[in-house]
Amino acid sequence: MRRIGFLYHPKIDEARRLTDELLQAISTDDVSPWVESSWDVDAMRQNMAESEMVITLGGDGTIIRTARIAAPCEVPILGVNFGRLGFLAEVEPEDAVTLVPKALKDDGWIEHRMLLNVNVVRDGEVVESLQAVNEVFAGRGETPRAVRITAWIDGAEMRTYTADGIVVATPTGSTAYALAAGGPILAPELPAILITPIVPHPTPYPSLVVDANSQIDVRVKTHHDAVLAIDGQINRPLRRNDRVSCSRSKHVASFVRLHPPSNFYATLMEKLR
Amino acid sequence: MRRIGFLYHPKIDEARRLTDELLQAISTDDVSPWVESSWDVDAMRQNMAESEMVITLGGDGTIIRTARIAAPCEVPILGVNFGRLGFLAEVEPEDAVTLVPKALKDDGWIEHRMLLNVNVVRDGEVVESLQAVNEVFAGRGETPRAVRITAWIDGAEMRTYTADGIVVATPTGSTAYALAAGGPILAPELPAILITPIVPHPTPYPSLVVDANSQIDVRVKTHHDAVLAIDGQINRPLRRNDRVSCSRSKHVASFVRLHPPSNFYATLMEKLR
Amino acid sequence: MRRIGFLYHPKIDEARRLTDELLQAISTDDVSPWVESSWDVDAMRQNMAESEMVITLGGDGTIIRTARIAAPCEVPILGVNFGRLGFLAEVEPEDAVTLVPKALKDDGWIEHRMLLNVNVVRDGEVVESLQAVNEVFAGRGETPRAVRITAWIDGAEMRTYTADGIVVATPTGSTAYALAAGGPILAPELPAILITPIVPHPTPYPSLVVDANSQIDVRVKTHHDAVLAIDGQINRPLRRNDRVSCSRSKHVASFVRLHPPSNFYATLMEKLR
Amino acid sequence: MRRIGFLYHPKIDEARRLTDELLQAISTDDVSPWVESSWDVDAMRQNMAESEMVITLGGDGTIIRTARIAAPCEVPILGVNFGRLGFLAEVEPEDAVTLVPKALKDDGWIEHRMLLNVNVVRDGEVVESLQAVNEVFAGRGETPRAVRITAWIDGAEMRTYTADGIVVATPTGSTAYALAAGGPILAPELPAILITPIVPHPTPYPSLVVDANSQIDVRVKTHHDAVLAIDGQINRPLRRNDRVSCSRSKHVASFVRLHPPSNFYATLMEKLR
Repeated sequence: MRRIGFLYHPKIDEARRLTDELLQAISTDDVSPWVESSWDVDAMRQNMAESEMVITLGGDGTIIRTARIAAPCEVPILGVNFGRLGFLAEVEPEDAVTLVPKALKDDGWIEHRMLLNVNVVRDGEVVESLQAVNEVFAGRGETPRAVRITAWIDGAEMRTYTADGIVVATPTGSTAYALAAGGPILAPELPAILITPIVPHPTPYPSLVVDANSQIDVRVKTHHDAVLAIDGQINRPLRRNDRVSCSRSKHVASFVRLHPPSNFYATLMEKLR
Repeated sequence: MRRIGFLYHPKIDEARRLTDELLQAISTDDVSPWVESSWDVDAMRQNMAESEMVITLGGDGTIIRTARIAAPCEVPILGVNFGRLGFLAEVEPEDAVTLVPKALKDDGWIEHRMLLNVNVVRDGEVVESLQAVNEVFAGRGETPRAVRITAWIDGAEMRTYTADGIVVATPTGSTAYALAAGGPILAPELPAILITPIVPHPTPYPSLVVDANSQIDVRVKTHHDAVLAIDGQINRPLRRNDRVSCSRSKHVASFVRLHPPSNFYATLMEKLR
Repeated sequence: MRRIGFLYHPKIDEARRLTDELLQAISTDDVSPWVESSWDVDAMRQNMAESEMVITLGGDGTIIRTARIAAPCEVPILGVNFGRLGFLAEVEPEDAVTLVPKALKDDGWIEHRMLLNVNVVRDGEVVESLQAVNEVFAGRGETPRAVRITAWIDGAEMRTYTADGIVVATPTGSTAYALAAGGPILAPELPAILITPIVPHPTPYPSLVVDANSQIDVRVKTHHDAVLAIDGQINRPLRRNDRVSCSRSKHVASFVRLHPPSNFYATLMEKLR
Repeated sequence: MRRIGFLYHPKIDEARRLTDELLQAISTDDVSPWVESSWDVDAMRQNMAESEMVITLGGDGTIIRTARIAAPCEVPILGVNFGRLGFLAEVEPEDAVTLVPKALKDDGWIEHRMLLNVNVVRDGEVVESLQAVNEVFAGRGETPRAVRITAWIDGAEMRTYTADGIVVATPTGSTAYALAAGGPILAPELPAILITPIVPHPTPYPSLVVDANSQIDVRVKTHHDAVLAIDGQINRPLRRNDRVSCSRSKHVASFVRLHPPSNFYATLMEKLR
């Protein structure tokens, strides 16, 4: 019996409705589906390891939340797009009843995307370890004042920024927050990490693109409050001497693709318009 | 007796020391000085109305904090620069003993800078009214996620941004936060208001420069927390339906100038380097 | 008899066809139309002075070419939009048969836009004087190498840029070339001039917005070839010591408007999407 | 006998003077130097193949001109910095007498930088083949009007830009023209190609960073004149249907380094300030 997960965005009625339709469409003897709200992270964790594939019905946020849990279990994700841009989704809702069964018959290919491993180091110890699909943000908290951020690449101090924050992003994340901050778009498969300052003072400052095997360390100095955010979904307060250490994760996110690889850029340009 | 205020940055020893030196240099029968930390806003308020001039010894932040209180009292400010950039300061510390007495003998001219009046409107009522020298920021609070911001110009809806925030700035503020966010520099005397989005999604978006008599209204929608910040110094939480209404203040900030007006741009360019 | 001009883009068949349709629709005893290709600048010059209004059928380029000639004659322009963006046009082709007769009955209002007067000064003499509706560009010619550009504001040297060029723009021009180069959008009626560097080295540099009564002087130094361009339509080679002197023109462009003034920003945002 | 070339910038007297000083400092039995102006490309070509190393005394432009010829011969370059930024130079003039002899004793290491191979394809045939160290520019010629540029990545159409031009750059070139146009900085060793539009209309557009093994094809459509430029040093007119095809060169440029690799970013940040 193949375990297949269905994760629908709980605030989108149509996502829930389409889930039911898909369950009927794929009902066969050899599929054993599980269905949960995409916000129920505990349920996701319980069911993920034994799953062969998960289908998400939501926006890119839904896919990313799922990917952080699916990646360590090596479970591929097929995204049905209920979001505005849908850079990561593969299937539009109107095609789902046709294409989801196709995907379950292995009529596609798997695209791997690198993740970042993020360690929060406090007093010399790793106090928390997280996975990021899109990006790691470190910067100002509630008080909208610029903070001082020092960044190191492979242990060598690179620069101290005065800025709202800094983003360390995967190629996948290059179309998210980093793009809004003026960063470039990285080819999805490029073995690289993107470093983009967020509103650097006094004038705009270029992004850096470094090798995927680099270690990027970041420390935030502020008299106020600093925060760490993973994919815009997980937030942690940062203490004054915390070091945020980012490097390539040993895990990768896997996405089921039905379209040929070549249309990444054309699709991207279309979505950005 | 002429009342002259001296406001020194309490964390800069050299500012306090120079204050004492200046007090000796100007001691005459007709000057009655008062001396306070620039962080003591209450003391500032008590002494401002009767003052003929105030001399600040700190960075631009010190000048701006002073200007919000000095402007309604029509008291001119002379800034001695202990900051990094010093766009608003007129005198470098090493020239202060020579130039401050000159300024007290009216050997200069007064530059006026427009301020913004900011009303926070809640349930149809103005719950708070503030003055801004540099800019009004409305946007995301502690949670580093984009919010939805709608802006109106003179009552006509202009646009809804997805962004970290929005800045409504005076020409003076155009060299501060708005500049870091990619905005233009406005000539100090230009009768204009600058509107600059902060990290607009999904890609950078142009600033707008509108007439100084325009009314700019802003509303922030978020499931999280939104904040209002004035000059990066005064912060207020915003509620879901609060409207932030910005228009030209009836007050102006007054700065004592000793250099000719023509060197604004050259100085600016030098500082930005 | 009221003389009304019709200027159609000669490469757009539909513009010519609609011109004929409009001529039939407006044929009355008191209108005497003249019809020319919008590329026939000589014909435009001959007929403009005696005209009460001209209707252009083309893109913004067509309107701008017409405006440089219509402005000194104080003839208002009504633009029928056959272009892609159409910031200056007022009427879409499908509404033209209804709205053009309305405009001829004075059922609208006139919007004035400032122009720039451009003098090319060589060996102390003005060798050419031109009008610009959008912008003045001075910079590199055929050889794609950065040049050195010095700019003065009201006679005070502001800065020397290393760049592809510099743009001095009207508020109208702020939505054209300057916008592409990262400049802000200026409210159409703002009494201001925009200065935007084109690809400044080594890193992006902010635009400046100065008072409309400022005089902006520009000199280009290059071992190669430099050019002056007005509205992207008139080009002149620049010699090594030529000074390009820009100031507010005594003429204004006049546009017939049928929509209320308030929808400038909303329309703009819509077009930029 | 080891053949060592000395290439001095012919317009910098100090570069010529230091060359003489270096010749005296290194004069030994086993070194046979040759000395030429860095503008004498023919002399460079004649002497390069038999050389063990070349020392340039000029700016980055001098190094790049040399590198295009040295790379196919696998000759490493040591740059003595007489330029403003000097991203590629390794030695400051005041240290040259000490460090150049050190470099000749193999007291350093060799850094390799990828080049681009550029083919101009006309009527299906390669009419010219060139090497680029920094970047390939294709875009507008003398007439400062936007052109239409279509780009393909590995044969798949990516996008059509309306812009002044497009830059396809190596990591080395990411600190040159592309940076000025808003592009990111790429780590020197990153196996990637950078694509940056130059003044894209109507609003700024992100750069793309693609795999170094990608083939980037570009075609420029214009009613006016289009040009191709290599490293800002070699210019060619482009005809209407020419295709410019860029891919990783089989050659690499080799630079002699005496400093440890880790200080690339710190140096970079220092230079950009």
